[in-house]
Amino acid sequence: MRVDGRPWRTLWLNADGWSVSAIDQTTLPHTFTVVRLETPDAAADAIRRMVVRGAPLIGAVAAYGLCLALRADPSPAALARATRLLANTRPTAINLRHALDRVAAAVQSLPPADRAAAAYAEAAAICEEDVARNTAIGDHGLPLLRAVAERTGRPVQVLTHCNAGWLATIDGGTALAPVYRAHDAGLPVHVWVSETRPRNQGSALTAWELQQHGVPFTVMADNAAGRLLQQQRVDLCLTGADRVTATGDVCNKIGTYLKALAARDSGVPFHTAVPSPSIDWTLTDAAAIPIEERDPAEVTEVWGATKTGETVVVRVAPAGSPALNVSFDITPARLISGLITERGCCDASAAGLARLFPEHQHAD
Amino acid sequence: MRVDGRPWRTLWLNADGWSVSAIDQTTLPHTFTVVRLETPDAAADAIRRMVVRGAPLIGAVAAYGLCLALRADPSPAALARATRLLANTRPTAINLRHALDRVAAAVQSLPPADRAAAAYAEAAAICEEDVARNTAIGDHGLPLLRAVAERTGRPVQVLTHCNAGWLATIDGGTALAPVYRAHDAGLPVHVWVSETRPRNQGSALTAWELQQHGVPFTVMADNAAGRLLQQQRVDLCLTGADRVTATGDVCNKIGTYLKALAARDSGVPFHTAVPSPSIDWTLTDAAAIPIEERDPAEVTEVWGATKTGETVVVRVAPAGSPALNVSFDITPARLISGLITERGCCDASAAGLARLFPEHQHAD
Repeated sequence: MRVDGRPWRTLWLNADGWSVSAIDQTTLPHTFTVVRLETPDAAADAIRRMVVRGAPLIGAVAAYGLCLALRADPSPAALARATRLLANTRPTAINLRHALDRVAAAVQSLPPADRAAAAYAEAAAICEEDVARNTAIGDHGLPLLRAVAERTGRPVQVLTHCNAGWLATIDGGTALAPVYRAHDAGLPVHVWVSETRPRNQGSALTAWELQQHGVPFTVMADNAAGRLLQQQRVDLCLTGADRVTATGDVCNKIGTYLKALAARDSGVPFHTAVPSPSIDWTLTDAAAIPIEERDPAEVTEVWGATKTGETVVVRVAPAGSPALNVSFDITPARLISGLITERGCCDASAAGLARLFPEHQHAD
Repeated sequence: MRVDGRPWRTLWLNADGWSVSAIDQTTLPHTFTVVRLETPDAAADAIRRMVVRGAPLIGAVAAYGLCLALRADPSPAALARATRLLANTRPTAINLRHALDRVAAAVQSLPPADRAAAAYAEAAAICEEDVARNTAIGDHGLPLLRAVAERTGRPVQVLTHCNAGWLATIDGGTALAPVYRAHDAGLPVHVWVSETRPRNQGSALTAWELQQHGVPFTVMADNAAGRLLQQQRVDLCLTGADRVTATGDVCNKIGTYLKALAARDSGVPFHTAVPSPSIDWTLTDAAAIPIEERDPAEVTEVWGATKTGETVVVRVAPAGSPALNVSFDITPARLISGLITERGCCDASAAGLARLFPEHQHAD
């Protein structure tokens, strides 16, 4: 995607052939900065502090974290140490674990001298496959938007939550892939961006990337989603996912469930874009997904830019207020109209997923 | 209620016998300040800028606004001008119109020289009746909390939205009246405070007044309500109302509807505290309620205190982001377990309200 007209990805291998750089998402939308990662610790720290975030992107950064570890020390002990370090950064998104497993599998039977190079090749493949999957999700999601445009004859009104745009991936986005695809194809589309408290990934990141790409949007408080849906001012909801069970339950950013309930109550379709690395084929019970809880200060304090352009943190709640900062919730499959994967759309159900991904079905 | 141990109301007649003062709710929780109102324009401005807010409180401030107008000029023209000015400050809460009508009715048949005094008497009565109603709501709501405590043997977990505490009234609160009543009676209660974006009346005001009173609470993002309810970490939801139709639909702060949907989906009771001046007996169709839209900057910017104690506004969204700031939504009666009024609890239905308020039923 483009920033000030110039193409960017969120993460790339530097010209030195070993270090990686990423767009720093903690300084957006106020400052566009890039961080350089040279060690697995730096990669882990970037994931933990949400310098990089979004299920697909943290998987790719974790993969490069293993590359950086193996480059310094190709021993199995070093790999195990780096894997543990990276796996423990954030518990909910399954992409992280999938990416770590992939790199480990790619290097484990190789002689030590070949491991780093193989890891880098695998990390690069993870990135390229992410981009290809997101392109396919855009293609498969486009007909949903086109059908609305043809039925209504006016710009398609999409409601999204959090950031499942290109910033959450290497490039292209998941939930926003069909939006960009439609916009680029000349289909008028407008996005309702829920701010996504407490970390404001909607108002800070989704608004920024839509603005950069020229897609019309409107920011609103998360609380406003119900009224917009009640008033039929939304044609469809599109979100990403941090982990989807084999039965189609969706674990995603806190607040997704409320929007899905409201969409159902107003008869508005609610779709989730799911690249296959976000599917946890081992799980049928969403209650078993570990749900991250972060620093309560993320709830009681807000970061932003003052009128003079300085960025500061302000506290909203009284000093000493206890706060809960739970990062994800579960939207049961029954509330989801459909999943959009790189292989096409399906019902949010075991049967729907099995039809598209038969290789993950076991005759047990 | 108490602030730093000393009793306060939100609004009072000063010792001069004519001017009124109010706690400035735009500077809480960071600074406790009082504003003095000497003209109807100042009263209207205080309502519009949300120096005072909360359906019952703005009714009382509007009543005093008419007093201030009549003191300066007791003519019907002056009364009409001030009524128009005050009625146009905020469109949604019906208490405002009820209070203006009451003062007008109290003075209209009097000679000009007697009008101001009668208006002041009526405004004082509006305030005293508000406090008495809230006490009654506390009494009628208490058994709901007591039943939970008796069933579970642990602190009652209440989830509330926005601020329907004493700051929203003259004193005592509406939704929080049963909470204070329970706490003061030694029944352990803990309140989940949803921050209530975009203006943060939860994290800024409800947290502040609960903290001042010593009631245990935890602030959370509005988005977290669904997960708390899914996990049965809430025993009952308690909110206030800005306007309730004669058929029991509740218009309240934006986001109330989402919480009611989630409560229903998890089988958790959802009650609304409704003093009778919040009931619009003329309305059976909630869609006819005018829903206020405020400055979009309230969504894209957040006010708070820096580490050094300075209060500033920070922008979260990219410069130039369009935003929608819709202040209220409608929770259909079907999602409401019950209304708590000053006359007792009832179903959220025409029949339920008719049983408690037979004088408002017409044989048409």
